[in-house]
Amino acid sequence: MVVDRLQQLTLQVSASSPPPHPLDPLTTSEIDTAVAIIRKEHGKVNFNAVTLDEPRKAEMTAWLANPEKAPRPTRAADVVVIAPGGKVYDGVVDLDAKKIVEWKHTPGVQPLITMEDLQEVEHVVRKDPKVIEQCAILGIPKEDMHKIYCDPWTIGYDERFGTDVRLQQALMYYRPHVDDSQYTYPLDFCPIYNAETKQIIHIDIPPVRRPLSKAAPNNYHAESIEKEGGYRTDLKPIHITQPEGVSFAVKGRTIEWQNWGIHVGFNYREGIVLNNITYNDKGNIRDVFYRLSLAEMVVPYGNPEHPHQRKHAFDLGEYGGGYMTNSLSLGCDCKGAIHYMDAAFVNRAGASTIVKNAICIHEEDAGILYKHTDFRDESMIVTRGRKLVISHIFTAANYEYCVYWIFHQDGTVQLDIKLTGILNTYSMNPGEDTHGWGTEVYPGVNAHNHQHLFCLRVDANVDGPNNTVFQVDATRGPGEVGSAENKYGNAFYAKKTKYTTPREAMSDYDGATGRTWEIANTNKLNPYSKKPVSYKLVSREVPSLLPKEGGLVWKRAGFARHAVHVTKYSDDQIHPAGRHVPQTSGEPSQGLPMWIEQAGPNASIDNTDIVLWHTFGLTHFPTPEDFPIMPAEPMTVLLRPRNFFTRNPALDVPPSFARTPSQVAAGSGGCGCSKKGASPDGSSVLV
Amino acid sequence: MVVDRLQQLTLQVSASSPPPHPLDPLTTSEIDTAVAIIRKEHGKVNFNAVTLDEPRKAEMTAWLANPEKAPRPTRAADVVVIAPGGKVYDGVVDLDAKKIVEWKHTPGVQPLITMEDLQEVEHVVRKDPKVIEQCAILGIPKEDMHKIYCDPWTIGYDERFGTDVRLQQALMYYRPHVDDSQYTYPLDFCPIYNAETKQIIHIDIPPVRRPLSKAAPNNYHAESIEKEGGYRTDLKPIHITQPEGVSFAVKGRTIEWQNWGIHVGFNYREGIVLNNITYNDKGNIRDVFYRLSLAEMVVPYGNPEHPHQRKHAFDLGEYGGGYMTNSLSLGCDCKGAIHYMDAAFVNRAGASTIVKNAICIHEEDAGILYKHTDFRDESMIVTRGRKLVISHIFTAANYEYCVYWIFHQDGTVQLDIKLTGILNTYSMNPGEDTHGWGTEVYPGVNAHNHQHLFCLRVDANVDGPNNTVFQVDATRGPGEVGSAENKYGNAFYAKKTKYTTPREAMSDYDGATGRTWEIANTNKLNPYSKKPVSYKLVSREVPSLLPKEGGLVWKRAGFARHAVHVTKYSDDQIHPAGRHVPQTSGEPSQGLPMWIEQAGPNASIDNTDIVLWHTFGLTHFPTPEDFPIMPAEPMTVLLRPRNFFTRNPALDVPPSFARTPSQVAAGSGGCGCSKKGASPDGSSVLV
Repeated sequence: MVVDRLQQLTLQVSASSPPPHPLDPLTTSEIDTAVAIIRKEHGKVNFNAVTLDEPRKAEMTAWLANPEKAPRPTRAADVVVIAPGGKVYDGVVDLDAKKIVEWKHTPGVQPLITMEDLQEVEHVVRKDPKVIEQCAILGIPKEDMHKIYCDPWTIGYDERFGTDVRLQQALMYYRPHVDDSQYTYPLDFCPIYNAETKQIIHIDIPPVRRPLSKAAPNNYHAESIEKEGGYRTDLKPIHITQPEGVSFAVKGRTIEWQNWGIHVGFNYREGIVLNNITYNDKGNIRDVFYRLSLAEMVVPYGNPEHPHQRKHAFDLGEYGGGYMTNSLSLGCDCKGAIHYMDAAFVNRAGASTIVKNAICIHEEDAGILYKHTDFRDESMIVTRGRKLVISHIFTAANYEYCVYWIFHQDGTVQLDIKLTGILNTYSMNPGEDTHGWGTEVYPGVNAHNHQHLFCLRVDANVDGPNNTVFQVDATRGPGEVGSAENKYGNAFYAKKTKYTTPREAMSDYDGATGRTWEIANTNKLNPYSKKPVSYKLVSREVPSLLPKEGGLVWKRAGFARHAVHVTKYSDDQIHPAGRHVPQTSGEPSQGLPMWIEQAGPNASIDNTDIVLWHTFGLTHFPTPEDFPIMPAEPMTVLLRPRNFFTRNPALDVPPSFARTPSQVAAGSGGCGCSKKGASPDGSSVLV
Repeated sequence: MVVDRLQQLTLQVSASSPPPHPLDPLTTSEIDTAVAIIRKEHGKVNFNAVTLDEPRKAEMTAWLANPEKAPRPTRAADVVVIAPGGKVYDGVVDLDAKKIVEWKHTPGVQPLITMEDLQEVEHVVRKDPKVIEQCAILGIPKEDMHKIYCDPWTIGYDERFGTDVRLQQALMYYRPHVDDSQYTYPLDFCPIYNAETKQIIHIDIPPVRRPLSKAAPNNYHAESIEKEGGYRTDLKPIHITQPEGVSFAVKGRTIEWQNWGIHVGFNYREGIVLNNITYNDKGNIRDVFYRLSLAEMVVPYGNPEHPHQRKHAFDLGEYGGGYMTNSLSLGCDCKGAIHYMDAAFVNRAGASTIVKNAICIHEEDAGILYKHTDFRDESMIVTRGRKLVISHIFTAANYEYCVYWIFHQDGTVQLDIKLTGILNTYSMNPGEDTHGWGTEVYPGVNAHNHQHLFCLRVDANVDGPNNTVFQVDATRGPGEVGSAENKYGNAFYAKKTKYTTPREAMSDYDGATGRTWEIANTNKLNPYSKKPVSYKLVSREVPSLLPKEGGLVWKRAGFARHAVHVTKYSDDQIHPAGRHVPQTSGEPSQGLPMWIEQAGPNASIDNTDIVLWHTFGLTHFPTPEDFPIMPAEPMTVLLRPRNFFTRNPALDVPPSFARTPSQVAAGSGGCGCSKKGASPDGSSVLV
């Protein structure tokens, strides 16, 4: 029976479509194939993840260099299953050879919590007698248990329970009406759920109780807005259209746009993964990045009262940015002419699933790209920019993360993240002191201080794999004011510090020097500046990790201790807080600190294949404006070409208007948009 | 004759239009009136500036509070003239009473350099025998002097020449062809021009000479792009249209948009000035800012070799961001449905002039304003934001500054500045060492390191004039890891430090603590959080002033020594580097340092009418990508409401899509945009 299904799937794939690009995510058929192969050998197991086992870089680059002759990298599935008894297996299935090539029991770890894992907690919580008892204490009668909700989080790490039992903590809420926002009614106790036995094994109860809030609901849905006067009616529509279609071409999952080449991958963990990013520099296809992704994040909360220390979600490693991804809708999430890509996953039972429109790819006008007017004669040029946006949005319980990978015509790659959604809230009594660990954003609602720290993984390939990272600090020149060398005191320069070892590369942001980091290829100098070709990391939202050294978050989120880490490339180093993140104790710290220790902190990272790990984000002290739903708060990271091109690479973008001094003198108008009435871009003018 | 003209103008004004708002810029008629009055009393003088003498705040706020009964503030002109012999007079003309109410000779100052002042230098330079001689030394024959160009800058300050003689330094360039960019051919010497005698009084000649570069031109105009393969042809148009018009109303120069009320002023110095910014909070018109403007800027260059220390332009105080403003064009500078405002100035001869379309006012889609999906049932809301952009662009010789004042529906005010245009360049010999003070961006072209430091003047009015500034630092909680109070080390809080005196308020940015500054009204607490209503300054591009303490720039640009200064409001304190900036020695430092000294650095700024001065910007180490014209580099400063509203003030913005759990359960679709085909916003979907 299983064999039949497998044969059937194989036929289906080979008959219908060209072979996928080696970095394409697994198709539903491939997922089904992998599952069938595992089922055949290992019987009934629960699937946690079936995702592309990415080709080793050496194989992949050989194939990219010569796709005709080099062997095509094998399609393989990276699999995590939970067998009966909670035994975790990590495996690799060769999808070409149709066989399991790796299979190992991994004790003492917990794979991430899937949406299915999350969904089942609330039902258990509502029926648990101890939870019912606690609800009664807060003033919620037994017959109202259907009004009880919980956001189940992985327990993070709780030393009382360790790692062996798969646990979730249920952050408790109440809804007076099914359409009310439960975040207005947080409850003060926290049940612990055992995912194996599907039981509540413990409840954390605070020493001072906080009865259910009696405040009115605080909602954002239509009925409540109508009650307060209704929606504003004075917003006129803005239409964004591309009647001739988009300016990008999609071949499989490779996008070509404005000299950029980008392969768009996606997985359950990181969400969007951008591979093999190249720039066509006048016919010369130049490597820029081998792989870019958001590889991890951590959201530590700042309230030291037990058990709030457990609130420090690793949303990617503990839940999966891909698994939590939204299905996007035209005009809601993106505007204009959109190309969508779906995402395929496995469910617990081993069936492949699809999230439609998981990735949105579209162009946007980017305002002025460059402009100059000669003050002598009004000869001028003004050129508008365009950007390509590759985005996805994921919902991590209360919060939403909108991730935008943006490509610019001037060679810049930009990562924007918008934070929105709803604050995580905890209950407070009238008049209770928050002690500064949070803010009362509504009566009875304490929103705790927190940080959002993201880890951007930059697998650089700046004109080839051998790169070197330099720290760049704007620095005053030597010589005091009045000295011969610096008489007026105005000397300053870019102080560049080469990172030769991972230890040296553990570095923090310095706002005073406007610190940036250059990923350089020291083997290739810009012919004009004689400086190495490079891409510069410009990132300004770089708070320190506030949880203290040696503390729980510091131990578990090793990647967040510094703004930048640099490691020598290794195929298996993708997840900087470890492969399996839930319930790690941080002893030893998984991921980045362990890899650096293993390779030797004094290993060479000079002129070799390196990965730069950048932690950025923000610290959020909530206010009532953030409630009951938070206006999006944006962050930006830039990767900018420096000494990479010999000139502005966007000079051949058609200008909106240009005229030379000769044209001014001759009274000819130059070329470009009209100065009056309707312009060629369809805009209309108001007088 | 003069009297007749004056009477005529008076009639003209009174007959044609309602009285201007007291903060409206002077009309051309008013400028003409002021000039006629001055001409009558003082004869033939050269006009440097005739601009609105803004009403004293006390009068203005009385009138705003009760426009029916309070006396309407007098219309008056603030005038700067240069009389024969270079005598500078500052005056005020009462335009209602038609008389000069202040008139004083101001010795030892130089008013800013106007475009007319700039324009005349090049002609003199080309004919000067000493300049011709220097050109010959560099290999440029006498008959090619028409190929010589110069960017005349104010001399800044040169101790050899002092302040009494009005001087410009001519940064020298060459164009092989009239359409070539001269910035590819900088010359190595620097003539000094006396604006009174219209003569070259000195030439600074470097010890090592640099003959004219033999490199090919490096241009951005169409012919040169065509020569290299032409413009790209794969960009499809993006149309942005508002068929029902804009969502804002303009009454005179007051904009009403999405609960915001903003009066849009403009002057020759600061360009856009936003006055009387209010937010309609459910019918309650709440004050937010009395006046916002870019009040000054300085661009120090980092090459200590003489005479490059003189390159540190105060583009607003030395030239005028208004005077240098561009006339904007639809589809080139702004897209969509645009409302333009013109700007009126005086010329040297006293005639009023107009820059058409100096200010662009338009709306843009702002992406997702907020979104949330409940993971239980996919009930959700997604609401798109809109922003209002009030912008102008000015050309400061080689550079362009694009200034965007942006209002958001969530109560945020954003200032974006884009830097574009062309690098200031200096010549270098083949193989010459830049010593790190610049970069060879093209053969023979040395682009020096520089900073762009802007001073944002925030005349706050957060629920009234009496405000207090707090420094906010994200700070680790007390108690070591393992202690009872901070067992897991995760405690952190917002440490708020009140500035009680201007001395305390002189503060720098701290990237590690993510430092922000709150402008709070401590007399009014948010009913939920019990924290003062406030607006928070969030600014992340805040480099240190790199010129050293005690040096020339440090002395002249006192405002740039710290990221934040706070002063008690005073009507005459607008220009933080002084009223007349050219040729100030910085001894004593004009503007901000002097005001603080005069008021006493320990004067109270606690709970009073205060002004916050914020210096931000960036340090630019040029690379070849920035040449021959620079892709726009953006910067952002935010002013965000914190504890100002009791909830997200944009909840009544109609959502793009929303459905409640009830609607999900009932199988009804909710409201909002369609999921397939053309959506209500006119977007089209690609498959």
